[in-house]
This record gives sequence, C-alpha cells and structure tokens, in this order.
Amino acid sequence: MLRDNPGPVRTVGAHDGLTAKLVQQAGFDAVWSSSFEISASHGLPDASLVTMSQYLAASEAMDLSVDIPVIADCDTGFGGPLNAAYTVQRYERAGIAAICIEDKLFPKINSFADTSQDLLPTEEFVLKIKAGKEAQIDPDFLLIARTEALIAGMEVSEALDRASAYVAAGADAVLVHSKSKRPDEVLDFASRWESEVPLVAVPTTYHVVDEDTLYNAGFRVVIYANHGLRAAVRGVQETLGELRRAGRAQAVQERIAPMHEVFALQGMPAQYREGR
Amino acid sequence: MLRDNPGPVRTVGAHDGLTAKLVQQAGFDAVWSSSFEISASHGLPDASLVTMSQYLAASEAMDLSVDIPVIADCDTGFGGPLNAAYTVQRYERAGIAAICIEDKLFPKINSFADTSQDLLPTEEFVLKIKAGKEAQIDPDFLLIARTEALIAGMEVSEALDRASAYVAAGADAVLVHSKSKRPDEVLDFASRWESEVPLVAVPTTYHVVDEDTLYNAGFRVVIYANHGLRAAVRGVQETLGELRRAGRAQAVQERIAPMHEVFALQGMPAQYREGR
Amino acid sequence: MLRDNPGPVRTVGAHDGLTAKLVQQAGFDAVWSSSFEISASHGLPDASLVTMSQYLAASEAMDLSVDIPVIADCDTGFGGPLNAAYTVQRYERAGIAAICIEDKLFPKINSFADTSQDLLPTEEFVLKIKAGKEAQIDPDFLLIARTEALIAGMEVSEALDRASAYVAAGADAVLVHSKSKRPDEVLDFASRWESEVPLVAVPTTYHVVDEDTLYNAGFRVVIYANHGLRAAVRGVQETLGELRRAGRAQAVQERIAPMHEVFALQGMPAQYREGR
Amino acid sequence: MLRDNPGPVRTVGAHDGLTAKLVQQAGFDAVWSSSFEISASHGLPDASLVTMSQYLAASEAMDLSVDIPVIADCDTGFGGPLNAAYTVQRYERAGIAAICIEDKLFPKINSFADTSQDLLPTEEFVLKIKAGKEAQIDPDFLLIARTEALIAGMEVSEALDRASAYVAAGADAVLVHSKSKRPDEVLDFASRWESEVPLVAVPTTYHVVDEDTLYNAGFRVVIYANHGLRAAVRGVQETLGELRRAGRAQAVQERIAPMHEVFALQGMPAQYREGR
Repeated sequence: MLRDNPGPVRTVGAHDGLTAKLVQQAGFDAVWSSSFEISASHGLPDASLVTMSQYLAASEAMDLSVDIPVIADCDTGFGGPLNAAYTVQRYERAGIAAICIEDKLFPKINSFADTSQDLLPTEEFVLKIKAGKEAQIDPDFLLIARTEALIAGMEVSEALDRASAYVAAGADAVLVHSKSKRPDEVLDFASRWESEVPLVAVPTTYHVVDEDTLYNAGFRVVIYANHGLRAAVRGVQETLGELRRAGRAQAVQERIAPMHEVFALQGMPAQYREGR
Repeated sequence: MLRDNPGPVRTVGAHDGLTAKLVQQAGFDAVWSSSFEISASHGLPDASLVTMSQYLAASEAMDLSVDIPVIADCDTGFGGPLNAAYTVQRYERAGIAAICIEDKLFPKINSFADTSQDLLPTEEFVLKIKAGKEAQIDPDFLLIARTEALIAGMEVSEALDRASAYVAAGADAVLVHSKSKRPDEVLDFASRWESEVPLVAVPTTYHVVDEDTLYNAGFRVVIYANHGLRAAVRGVQETLGELRRAGRAQAVQERIAPMHEVFALQGMPAQYREGR
Repeated sequence: MLRDNPGPVRTVGAHDGLTAKLVQQAGFDAVWSSSFEISASHGLPDASLVTMSQYLAASEAMDLSVDIPVIADCDTGFGGPLNAAYTVQRYERAGIAAICIEDKLFPKINSFADTSQDLLPTEEFVLKIKAGKEAQIDPDFLLIARTEALIAGMEVSEALDRASAYVAAGADAVLVHSKSKRPDEVLDFASRWESEVPLVAVPTTYHVVDEDTLYNAGFRVVIYANHGLRAAVRGVQETLGELRRAGRAQAVQERIAPMHEVFALQGMPAQYREGR
Repeated sequence: MLRDNPGPVRTVGAHDGLTAKLVQQAGFDAVWSSSFEISASHGLPDASLVTMSQYLAASEAMDLSVDIPVIADCDTGFGGPLNAAYTVQRYERAGIAAICIEDKLFPKINSFADTSQDLLPTEEFVLKIKAGKEAQIDPDFLLIARTEALIAGMEVSEALDRASAYVAAGADAVLVHSKSKRPDEVLDFASRWESEVPLVAVPTTYHVVDEDTLYNAGFRVVIYANHGLRAAVRGVQETLGELRRAGRAQAVQERIAPMHEVFALQGMPAQYREGR
C-alpha cells in the first residue's frame, strides 16, 4: 500500500461503516479508523474511555463496508507490550491493513487538547513495537509508529531520534504528529529523515499545506484525520437548526441526501433500492 | 413525556451518541434511536441484519449523551413474544424512555424500500404487545405500537382496526406509518381515531405537512426519523469532494466544525477543550 | 476437515474461549460453538434471544483459543436468506471453519424443549442455503444443513427428502437431528442416504450409541453438543454446595484446578505462570 | 449490603450469567464478577487484555441472571481518574451494586502471577477514588478500594496507611489482598484497623481460614474469588477425558446435569422445560 502508490496515499478519517463508505465514494485511497472520531461518535472524550474491543468493532465495520484499505488508529496500543501484541493479533485477523500506535502514555488524551502531554520513554515504546511485530503473521500487515514528540513540545531532533529507534525496532512507517499552524516542523523533520521507511503526515492544524508539498518532502501517506466528522457536525447542525425553526421537513428537503442514496450506501439489495 | 408537552414532542432520528447530542443541541424534545440510521451507520441495509444487542448498545450510547428522552425504534421486537418481552426488559433497564415495535414480519425490510410488505396477523402482534407490557417494571416506560398497514397498501380502516387492537392489548401510543407523498391518509386516520391513546407521526415522504397541522389533527409526537443522517451524508459528500479536488485541508476549513466544538460535544473535560 | 479424518470428527460443544480450550485439551478434533451453551452462559433460554453478533463474538473467542476447527451452530441462520448470507460472510471472515443452519422457524426454541416444533417449508430453507453458499468466498468453508424433521415428528422419509433438497441447494454436509432415546431413526436415515455428502450426528438423547457405530453407519462427524457445559454445571454445583456448607475454601481445595493450570489454559505468558 | 448482614457477606466469583446463577443457587449472598474468571473465559490472560466494555457486559449478564447483588472486580479502574469516573457511571447505571478498584498499575497482571508487582503512588490512587465517588449518583452504590500492598511485598503498616488514605478519599470498604498461605497478615491488618469502614477478604491462598475467623477479625465480606471456575475446569476435564476414552456419551451420563436442569437455570419458560 505504502510503496506502490504513484502519489501520496490520501486518507480520510471515519468512525463507522457509512462514513468509511463516504471516504471511498469521494475517491480517497484509504480510510483512517480515527480514535478521535470513534470516541466522539460514542459521545465520549478522546481519552482512552472507548475500549479496544469497541475500536476494533468500528474498524471491522469500516473494512466490511469498503474495498480500500483501513488504517486503524490504535492510540497507545491500549496498554503495554502484551496489549500491543494482542492488538496486532486481533486487527490483523479482522482484515485491517495497518495499525498505528503512538508514544504517549496510557490513558491518552487527544493531541490537540489544551494540556501538556507526557511521552513514554523511547525504550519502553520500542518494546511495544517489537511485541507487536512479533505477533504479526501476515507479511503485508503494517505497523505505523507515531511519535508525539513535537506535540509534547520537544525538538525535531528528539522526534527524529525516537522515530529512528522505532524503525530499528521494526516499525513499517513513521507518523510524525504536529499541532503547529505551519508545516515547517514536519517538513524540517522530513528533510532530515535518512531512512527508507515511509513517513505519514496529519495536516489538521497546518492545513495550509497541500498534498504535493508533503509528497515532495517525503511523506507517502497524508491523513485528513477528522474532516468528515467535522463536516457532518456542521451539516447536521445547520439542517436541524433549520428544521427546528421551520417545523416542517420540507424546509430541509433540498439539503439532505434522498433515501435511495442512503439505501445504496448501506448496501440495500439493488432491487429494493428505489426508495422514495 | 407524551401527555405533558404543550405542543408536539418534536423528535429527530440519531444513530450514535454524537448525533443524539446534536438533536438535543438543536432544541428538539426527544431522540429517535432509528434502526434505519443505525443499520446505515454499520454500513448494512435496514433489514434485520444489525442485532438487538447492537441496537441496544447504540440506544444506550445516545441516552448516556443526552438529557432528553430516547425513543428506541425496535423494528418487529426482534422476533416473537419472548423477544418482545426481553426487549422491554433490556431497554427499560438501560434507561430508554420508550420503545416502538411494528407489525411487519421478521426479518423486516425498510418501509420505504421498493417492495411489497407482509404484516403479522393482528392477533399475533397483540401477543407481542402483551408480552412486552407484562415484562415492564417501570410505570413510566412506554411501549409504542406501530402499524404498517398503510405501508402494506391496506385501507385506513384496517389500520384503525389494528391500532385499536394494539391499544386494547396495552400499547401506550400508536404510530401510524405512511409512505404517501401527502399527509391525507394519516390525517384521515387521526380524524377517525376515537381513543385517548396518543398518536405518533413520521413525516418522511409527506414532508409537506407542518407540526402544527399534525398536532391539531391529534398527533402528540412528530418524528423526523432520518433527517440528521441524511444531512450528514450530504454534508460529508460535499466536503470530501472538495477536499479531494483541492488536495489541501484549508479548502474545507470554513465548512467544518472547529475541533473545540467537537470537544465540547463529546464531553471533553472543560479545562482541556480549547483545542486548535 | 470432513473427508480426511481417519474416523469420525469427534466434536464437543463449548461456549467461550476457555471451554473450547478444554475440548482441545481433551483430544477432540473440533469445537461445536453451541447456541444452547452460549445462551445458557448468558443466563438466557435457547430461544433466539442471544443475537448473531453475540454468537459470533463467542465463536471468534473460541477460534482464537484453539488450533482445531470451530463449527458454529447458527440456529436458523438468524432470519431469512439475507441473514444467512450475512452470517456466512461474517463467520467465514472471522476464521470459523464451518457453520450449521437448521430448518426450524425463527425465533427458534431448543430442540429438546417440551413443545411442538414447526419447520420452514423446504423451498424456503433452500433459499437460505443458496444465499449462504453464494456469499461464501473461501472454498474450504463449510455450510452444514440441519434438518429438524425428526424433531418435529415427521417420518425419516421426509427428513431424507429435505436433506436431499438441501444438498441439491449446495449444503456441504447434513446434520439429521433426533430426540429419540434410541439411535434407530438416525441409523435408518443413514442407511437410506444415497448421497456422497457427509452426515453429522448429535447423540444427546440417544447417548447409548457409540462413535464406531455411527461412523460405520456413515456419520462423518459426531457432536457431543452440550456435555462440557453440563459437566461444568454439575461440578460447580457440588463444589459450591460443599464450600457453602464448610465455610472454608480448604474444604474444596482438592476438587478444583490449581491456579497455575488455569493460567496455562488462558495463555498467561509462561514466565508468570507458576501461580500459587 | 455490607452493614446489615448478620454474618459475613459470602461471595463467590463468576464469569457469566450461568455461573452467577449457580452462585445464587448454592445459597451465597453475593456474586463477584471476577476479572480473572472473565479473562479466563475469553481464553485470555488476566492482564488488562479484556476491556472495560467486555467486563461490563459480563457483569450485566450476571446481574440480569440473579437476585443477589453483584460486586464487580474492576481491576485498576481501567486507567486514570477519568476512567474510574466513567467506570462508576456505567456500572452504577447497569445496576451493579458495587465495584472494586485496586492500586496496581495499568496494565495489571493477576496478583498470583509469578512476578513482582508495582503499585501506583497513594496520592494517585486517591485521585481515582475521588473521581469515582464524584461520578456516583445512587447513594447505595459502593466503591471498594483494594490495596495490593501485601501482594507487592510491602509491610502491613504500608497497607494500613494506604487503606486509611483510600477511606479518607471516600472508599466505602477496603479489600486487603494477600498471597500468603497463612491468614496471619490479613488478620494482623484487621486487628490494627481502626476505621468503621468494612473490610473485605479473599482467601485464595490462605484457604485454611474459615469465615467465622475472618468475620470475628472484622471482615464483613469474604470472597471466594475463583472457586466456581476452578471447579468447572476440573469437572469438564474429567468428564471430557472420560468421554474421549469411551467414545460414547452414555459413559458420562451420570456425571453431567440433565438438560431440564440447565433449562431451569437459563430461564427457559416453565412450560417448555421438561427436556429430555
């Protein structure tokens, strides 16, 4: 998946089968099973309250709904090395193409939350990567190591050191996360990256950057990690606000998808789909 | 819930904790835990493939996320009288305010699907209502009986006969479903309804009608059963389409909710919410 | 699995990962993921109250725990042809070797319950088998058709007619169920069976029969469908009764497995296993 | 529950609805929803691999099956203070009478495993207790604080200091765990305990002690945490071994519960129960 694509693997976050389907429908290359989105969909903060078994069920629902690969955001690996190994075993078995684990502490809190972040010592995170890779059976399965060094306020050099250690431990790709409003630090990281192992970018705050710039800098995967959910929130707010004011469904008829489109998305057998 | 409201109980469909929260945020009175929406969110047709335990988990996630009541769409009661009784036991225990069961056969298919529909004989559906009511412990819990007689192409008189039998069996409210583009048949039903038991309307196809008309005709609950999900689909399609074309997140930045709004919706502790 | 075994495929019922492991430990060839056992473990009657998603999770926990194949008892296929197809899709994907579906009506009740049983018309069950086989991807996956004709009080000839129709529809094996105290009717069935398709026996009530007799009569799989659970119930009752009387754990110390044995069964990493 | 009982609250471990029912049937006062048993039933080591949502589902299945209270073993509270608060919210809502959280680190490993154990600093565990108590709504719900100080090789005085701090933080009872073969250290602890807050004992390794001795020493709850599961393992091993050797179900017929007994335990409607 990571090496053969002629450009960046363009990936968008999802939280259930339907949103995964919308990612595929829009022409993207892969689905990001986002822990931020999934916890939001449960009505819970992105703070290790939703459980591994719930995340796995969501990822599997996505994979059942699409033909493109699903990359699962697995937070910290849900605990220590035993948890990381079990995570690989279960996600691989469920048909998920890749998982991503990060070097924050468990329980984690969302990287964009207004709080300081503590990282696991490098050598402890290395143990998780090794345990995960040892549990892997399918040679095509990918383990992406995500460093939160920049999120935690460390220097790019520290992020590079951590990323190199993760690659030495067996990581198949490196996601370097950033909450800067500018792409400078991730581009700096990429310019100093000496490994063949592919890089992954998540341009949430540094949304000014475009895919080509990231690709040319060396990023092979670009993840729009939460844009579908955030579009849904805005769309639903506007439509329900209008419906509440109007007191009549007709008022929003033009801004909602017709039933037959939803039928098609959810896989209703074609002969029943006409809808109304 | 049904008797004290000064106007119709305005209710909107949801499929997870987040969408339930958006219904509450928009100022509606209750949440409809929609089997159409929940099955769509799983990427599955609305055809009794999603299971009772999955529907229950979704309804409970909604109820955990809001302060307004949740009314759960329980399809056919998931089988026979034993299933209906067990459904009441579990939903009541989970804090759900009301459930709705319908007189179609199991496995059901969505009422707007392009196919004929078969109904259970009245006396068999009556057994489900009785079993459900006998299983009830909390006196405030409500069992809504939904007749699909009009969906199945029967006359209003048949719908009235069925509804009366369901009330005699203990139903606390009656939902009369219709796929007409005009509200005439449900208004006709209401004008001939002689019971004190409240009526429920779902103006999906007859979206021209307004809440006041329904309320004045005798409907005490109006359910916009799927408008949030359909708004989300449209909103996500447009945003992801634009993102795909632009190759840059900034292109959609104005049409998506900011992170801190999602943080607030998902209950992130206030001190961490600022987001970016 | 069914054709290569040098004798009958000896199979025992289980309801979770641990009991599946005990089946393997005792030297049997396969695990029967029993809907009777799983519903009992949930504290629920075997009457279609436990859902497909719960049965699937239990079957998958079994398969994760053992190296021998898991054959999943899928009741009626959980609804109609769409449900049967979805069942095949999900169980196959979860790594289950074979599923078994039966020609009773949904919701079902246990075949040994003191009640009459109604069967689905042959042609309708045939549609389920066809839908299931069409959904199959892995050529090694097996769909076992189970006829309850003898349970429903029909003649052996009717059971044979049904079984033949199921084979014509694509069934990979036939389970002919019986609640007779003698094996005569299943042996009669086998003696008149003219197909190459293998037969499966479940000697619960006709427990006098031995495996060799069944194998020589043509049965390729013998399922002791519930003996582990029934042994557990008796063992727990006796031990807890003694513990309750004695008021001291030492009183039962000799009749319970030591901690380190349970550690080994549950896969505790070897270095931690010594226990106490 | 803890104060009104005329003797110790005799409690036995369970892992699903059926085993909970067997605990009640044997005449015990409460059910311990054991994380050791539940993880074993999943075929997984007792090492924070089974998730909070799975433990909760198991506890709820137990509570649905019995009339006596269920006390849920919640390991470390599944993370930090936010997790502890969420745990209280969900278990309380599910009807569970009490939960128990312990001062080991997440991910935990079983207290009888052959390894050293690290404890959370007292002040950090205090934050979990406070967060849990603040989340509580029902005044009858109980939060039991469990100290693993003796398991970790600390002195009784350290265990007392920790327990006192936990009580000051709001704990409703204190479980002092021990892996000694003699009850001396827990009796020593009890003799030096100066609070009114009740004590809980788990005589797994110190099985020589009897309930009266523990009660007279001040313990108000005695938990036989895993004896049912260990009885089941031994019983199933012996029965399946015999079945494997004999090749005939009749060989084990006398040592297994008859079908109608299991029917009764799983709540089969009485009219269908006769079984065979």
